[in-house]
Amino acid sequence: MASESQICKIDGINGKLYYRGYSIDDLVENCTFEEVTYLLLYKKLPNSIQLEEFSQKMRKSREIRDEIKSMVRSFPADAHPMELLQSVVSYLSSYIEHKIQHSAYCNCRDTLHQVVQMATVVAALQRFREGKEYVAPRMDISHGANFLYMLHGTEPDPREGEIMDKCLIMHAEHGFNASTFTSRVVASTLSTCYCSISAAMGALYGSLHGGANEKVLQMVDDIGSTENVKSWIEDALRRKSKVMGMGHRVYKAKDPRAVIMEKFLHELSEKKNDYRDYEILKEVEHVFEEIIKAKGKQVYPNVDFFSGAVYRLLGIPSILFTPIFAMARVAGWLGHILEQRSDNRIYRPTSLYRGPDPKQFVRIERC
Amino acid sequence: MASESQICKIDGINGKLYYRGYSIDDLVENCTFEEVTYLLLYKKLPNSIQLEEFSQKMRKSREIRDEIKSMVRSFPADAHPMELLQSVVSYLSSYIEHKIQHSAYCNCRDTLHQVVQMATVVAALQRFREGKEYVAPRMDISHGANFLYMLHGTEPDPREGEIMDKCLIMHAEHGFNASTFTSRVVASTLSTCYCSISAAMGALYGSLHGGANEKVLQMVDDIGSTENVKSWIEDALRRKSKVMGMGHRVYKAKDPRAVIMEKFLHELSEKKNDYRDYEILKEVEHVFEEIIKAKGKQVYPNVDFFSGAVYRLLGIPSILFTPIFAMARVAGWLGHILEQRSDNRIYRPTSLYRGPDPKQFVRIERC
Repeated sequence: MASESQICKIDGINGKLYYRGYSIDDLVENCTFEEVTYLLLYKKLPNSIQLEEFSQKMRKSREIRDEIKSMVRSFPADAHPMELLQSVVSYLSSYIEHKIQHSAYCNCRDTLHQVVQMATVVAALQRFREGKEYVAPRMDISHGANFLYMLHGTEPDPREGEIMDKCLIMHAEHGFNASTFTSRVVASTLSTCYCSISAAMGALYGSLHGGANEKVLQMVDDIGSTENVKSWIEDALRRKSKVMGMGHRVYKAKDPRAVIMEKFLHELSEKKNDYRDYEILKEVEHVFEEIIKAKGKQVYPNVDFFSGAVYRLLGIPSILFTPIFAMARVAGWLGHILEQRSDNRIYRPTSLYRGPDPKQFVRIERC
Repeated sequence: MASESQICKIDGINGKLYYRGYSIDDLVENCTFEEVTYLLLYKKLPNSIQLEEFSQKMRKSREIRDEIKSMVRSFPADAHPMELLQSVVSYLSSYIEHKIQHSAYCNCRDTLHQVVQMATVVAALQRFREGKEYVAPRMDISHGANFLYMLHGTEPDPREGEIMDKCLIMHAEHGFNASTFTSRVVASTLSTCYCSISAAMGALYGSLHGGANEKVLQMVDDIGSTENVKSWIEDALRRKSKVMGMGHRVYKAKDPRAVIMEKFLHELSEKKNDYRDYEILKEVEHVFEEIIKAKGKQVYPNVDFFSGAVYRLLGIPSILFTPIFAMARVAGWLGHILEQRSDNRIYRPTSLYRGPDPKQFVRIERC
């Protein structure tokens, strides 16, 4: 048991997820990402005046400094964006006005507006990778819609902007995973919230943590069409390789985020008249569930199963999937950093020494 | 209990510290920092051919790319070097040849040579802060001596170079502290070793972790002269503020590194004919021990007690003390990352939910 927490309740048996008591279904249905960020940080939903003020604060901070643009531009094109993102977050911290981040208990709520810039950095990075110009953020649309705008440089379809924003809500928080735990360990030394978030990014970059939705799409492309699903899965099981996006350590029912993601995917497939990914995924779900059922077990899709296909229909390249995860999860990380600091004890776990006994030093003969 | 480990044995009762079975006294007496890095990574001391090869590999990698110099130069002068160092480490990873770091089980031993560049970055940063030119590394002297050379731009005194190198040995490893634990948690997701080290830097930056030797020197300057020691300490105890550098969570005897640091400080004080810090520190140790003894307890100096004064006599500004700690500890972090990967299980601790019960969502009225 690492800690107590008041932020996230995962009811794996019933397939329910709550942020501070509110179900993910209600939050996705009714809120913006900005509103959910407020909930995670301030422990309660904002009233309309608070939300307006908070949203404005976030929006006014979307633009990044020229130095950050130069750094993003200088980044090698073949490096992974997560390396840049980890790097740029600690770099950003050096530009905070009044050096408020140097105060051990700096108010993360006030530094949040800088973290908004992650979306700007991710979009800029991709533009530069494609040899395109930087697109300055807009202030009049949601965080998700503005991300699509900065990425594509064109007015986002209103419903697509909304879906993007809701995808961020679904990725904003999920309890004590490795990256969130990392952010808390670093925060427990009274390091800055930027340095804590940068560290968490490093954990999210690991292939056992972020990146599963990217692999689901690779699987979809590898399968190619619905007819190939059965033989592909049978072959995968023979090779003992995993069917990506199916099953979850905690959820013993369908991941509630997967239910919502599936609806979004269906809606976008209809809108774009492109059902390929949707149909392959539904067939994978069906075939794999049947095979597992025959073994007397059950398996369900998790959030990663449909999200990659949703992002693809929103025109987002798969290299950005983990960075988008980070852009969203930063809200949860900040909630956990604040909680850690509110009753802090430095993480200094014990370990059991199993190495050699003390031994005599024998000096090597020099050449 | 976070884990088992074969790297570091701390015998707090007897004031002994061992890296892979060798006492810190023997290592400081006989080895270079490069040799100890080899020990931490390869689990045994090198023979003379292995050491020669390993040292050459480290030395050849000291120079940094122009892009890194630009990034260091662009860093705001009033930001803390630890922010830059955390940022630059993940940035460095994007320049590794052949992208070996993208492989989950990349061989940290082969990427180590890039981490050598931390010393170059720290020296360059300070040169730029002082409005001076970059000094390219030399290949013919130890890691510690070369650091002094790059920092000052002048031939280092051979004994001072040696002392610097030995100070790095003493900071190279110390079991499961918060930064090392962070590096292991991040490595457990199969993130890159650079991203794991960058994360660990974030933890070391926290005021509860790194930075104590800087505070010891502030105390020394605040005291000003030996006559003021007694009244200063009595006043500090009345104010319930800490006497920095005295006492240690694990050591119930004198920290063996403090014993060595004290010798170095005495030697350098004699060499430079500047005993001020040494005399104030010895008086603080004496007076504070007496006061504690009167309460029936014992207290001893830890490694931070003398190290700041040693660095000051080596001409190092106090803002670099934590970065120097990081430059050294990176060897230990890499040892732990390798150990974590050798028998990996992702860190996903459990937590106890203590937040609100599920509640009804009530939509806010919009303005």
